[in-house]
Amino acid sequence: MRKIHVIGIGAGDPDQLTLQAVKALRGTDVFFVLDKGEVKNDLVRLRRDMLDAHIPEGTYRVVEARDPERDRTAGGSAYSPAVGDWRSARADIYERLIAEELCEDESGAFLVWGDPALYDSTLGILQEILDRGSVAFEYDVVPGISSVSALVARHRTGLNRVARPVQITTGRRLAEGFPEGVDDVVVMLDAHQTFRQYADQDLDIYWGAYIGTPDEILASGPIAEAAPRIERLRAEARERKGWIMDTYLLRRHPKNH
Amino acid sequence: MRKIHVIGIGAGDPDQLTLQAVKALRGTDVFFVLDKGEVKNDLVRLRRDMLDAHIPEGTYRVVEARDPERDRTAGGSAYSPAVGDWRSARADIYERLIAEELCEDESGAFLVWGDPALYDSTLGILQEILDRGSVAFEYDVVPGISSVSALVARHRTGLNRVARPVQITTGRRLAEGFPEGVDDVVVMLDAHQTFRQYADQDLDIYWGAYIGTPDEILASGPIAEAAPRIERLRAEARERKGWIMDTYLLRRHPKNH
Ligand SMILES: C[S@@+](CC[C@H](N)C(=O)[O-])C[C@H]1O[C@@H](n2cnc3c(N)ncnc32)[C@H](O)[C@@H]1O
Ligand SMILES: C[S@@+](CC[C@H](N)C(=O)[O-])C[C@H]1O[C@@H](n2cnc3c(N)ncnc32)[C@H](O)[C@@H]1O
Repeated sequence: MRKIHVIGIGAGDPDQLTLQAVKALRGTDVFFVLDKGEVKNDLVRLRRDMLDAHIPEGTYRVVEARDPERDRTAGGSAYSPAVGDWRSARADIYERLIAEELCEDESGAFLVWGDPALYDSTLGILQEILDRGSVAFEYDVVPGISSVSALVARHRTGLNRVARPVQITTGRRLAEGFPEGVDDVVVMLDAHQTFRQYADQDLDIYWGAYIGTPDEILASGPIAEAAPRIERLRAEARERKGWIMDTYLLRRHPKNH
Repeated sequence: MRKIHVIGIGAGDPDQLTLQAVKALRGTDVFFVLDKGEVKNDLVRLRRDMLDAHIPEGTYRVVEARDPERDRTAGGSAYSPAVGDWRSARADIYERLIAEELCEDESGAFLVWGDPALYDSTLGILQEILDRGSVAFEYDVVPGISSVSALVARHRTGLNRVARPVQITTGRRLAEGFPEGVDDVVVMLDAHQTFRQYADQDLDIYWGAYIGTPDEILASGPIAEAAPRIERLRAEARERKGWIMDTYLLRRHPKNH
């Protein structure tokens, strides 16, 4: 039976690999690498460096494929269907890779950024392929340090306050309003700096970009003061590198309660 | 200047240590181990085994202290003050350990279960000690694989659905009602199997106890069917081992929307 490892590799720092992940890398015959286009070349390189650092050369193969283009022009409620189409297109590619590039007794691996459990499609896609029934395999998941954990570690703060909940959400959702019932909100996938919408509120922000990489930038403070500073840092960094990955925690002041 | 590492060690599987954590262990002169009383002896042993596995003997010291008793009898709204008292009692102990057991140029470490960012008091306590101003030190945080990440990895599912939020909360909060605005809820620190309260709802549950350890137990399914099964498994395990650590994800069915 073919075997697939879905391996969380941490969110930027190669030392965020777990010992379990290193063992899984060493037990893999074929790595599937999806190229997301030029802007993300740094990320593909980071994955390759990890393989070089932890596995003897010549003991594994790397198979590259081009990621399908996601329709980013579809806005509003069209988001989910566009994601659905893109997922199926990706499932077609993964299915072909597994069927054609992996022998019956071999192990393949997908290296997933951060933790495979957070805003990543790999697990859903593998399940979709199995449901189609044309190629059989077993799979397991190696958890990774998410950008959420990495963010708060760098800011030396917790995700939640004592006995309180925390919500992890997207920029798109945050634009619809501050989540109900929580004072601590982590925001990912925010291309529009949605935190600016809350700059007049009694919130602290803990922000980080390229966390764990040599380009890491951190900023924090009361949002009214920090928001313009982050906007500037973010624009400069994006200009310099051509792309940005950032995450932030919004924390409502306890005195509001 | 004294230096403290707050090191996330994963939630049960010693291979969940990151390479960064191993490096931090190796750079530590003094480990502070807080004994939580008999029932948690297994956990103290696991920490000791990690040190044995990764650091040459004789290159470090272990300092043990007794954790203050937390007042678990305080119910309802008394919860937070009791936690506050307990935190200050703990801060007294940590302060003394740092001042008396760590030389000016040495590094100390606290090994934190899972990820130090989730329902753990270590970071808050260190900040409280610094605020008191009687002992000075620098500290950094090494993120760890949380029991939340470990849970969903073992169930091979994500924390969130596509473009949807996820909330992490406590059993106590869940008892007050299903959180607003989310369909995916992870519950920790639940001594009362609060999921039973939702057994008539259209939810799936993904449950795990002692995740990552040799005693690991997993169960999942539609909650109506799974809840009694989990109740039984949990009671048996608790009886056998004398203590239990469990976490679960509640997932509301998409067709409700
Ligand atoms: C598609 S999601 C994948 C998340 C990933 N699975 C994880 O666990 O971090 C991509 C989002 O993760 C966040 N992200 C990932 N890596 C990051 C990093 N090194 N620094 C800051 N944010 C990061 C950003 O919010 C980005 O929009
Ligand atoms: C005080 S909190 C600490 C959480 C820890 N910092 C983390 O990241 O997992 C303790 C709670 O974590 C959960 N937990 C920790 N380790 C676990 C394990 N191995 N299996 C299941 N649940 C666990 C349980 O819900 C327990 O009540």
